[in-house]
Amino acid sequence: MADLNPLYRNYIACLNRRDWDALGVSVATDVRHNGRDVGLSGYRHMLECDVIDIPDLRFQIEQTVCEGDILVARLRFDCHPAGTFVGLPVNGRHVIFEECAIYRFRNTKIVDVRSFIDVPAIATQLQSNSGAIVRNAVRP
Amino acid sequence: MADLNPLYRNYIACLNRRDWDALGVSVATDVRHNGRDVGLSGYRHMLECDVIDIPDLRFQIEQTVCEGDILVARLRFDCHPAGTFVGLPVNGRHVIFEECAIYRFRNTKIVDVRSFIDVPAIATQLQSNSGAIVRNAVRP
Repeated sequence: MADLNPLYRNYIACLNRRDWDALGVSVATDVRHNGRDVGLSGYRHMLECDVIDIPDLRFQIEQTVCEGDILVARLRFDCHPAGTFVGLPVNGRHVIFEECAIYRFRNTKIVDVRSFIDVPAIATQLQSNSGAIVRNAVRP
Repeated sequence: MADLNPLYRNYIACLNRRDWDALGVSVATDVRHNGRDVGLSGYRHMLECDVIDIPDLRFQIEQTVCEGDILVARLRFDCHPAGTFVGLPVNGRHVIFEECAIYRFRNTKIVDVRSFIDVPAIATQLQSNSGAIVRNAVRP
């Protein structure tokens, strides 16, 4: 299997450029996301919606772990989601959070993505910024 | 670096046995969790609280990805959290969800853990089970 890191960096650069027409260079037409057959067009639509929801969305790679055809990335976001995000009323406030995503590649393209956003970290920041918006959002 | 998979399976078996006195076999005394210096005693306390919150908690390994001293695990949970869990009013209902955790090993022991629970998946299940408990909890 080829080194997946440069392929992944190209994919993230594409997202940060909002270069949706080039998404098919990195993502397969039959891509799955969190167990759903979204396909390339559905995946593109999801990303376009993410950028509407979070206008200053920028993907920053913190760590990658590779084995065989799998790349795991820990991503960092430092942004201002405009409204409700992952069920939380962020409403334009500044939040920093991480996501862990597991990608499976087929040759040079991503064919499967499982995404895990650290929602409790966002809840904690909202709580500390503005009182009791979210209760008990973090495990002990 | 040794194969981390058998070490990790031993750790998960220890959790599923609730064998807290053996936790130090797999976890270092200076372990960190989500960026905090919790230490072995704090880590044990966190797990003990998890089991109080989720009496039928059972860790099931779905996938591991290893590179160097890092092991990433995708874990599956099929359980009934008793009250509020990750900010959501589960209140004993049945939920199935996954967690992605990134572990760093030093020799044979875990020294750093970053945990990402799929909170939107839980929110979606609560929503479909009982109407409008959680709104807009899932990204498009």
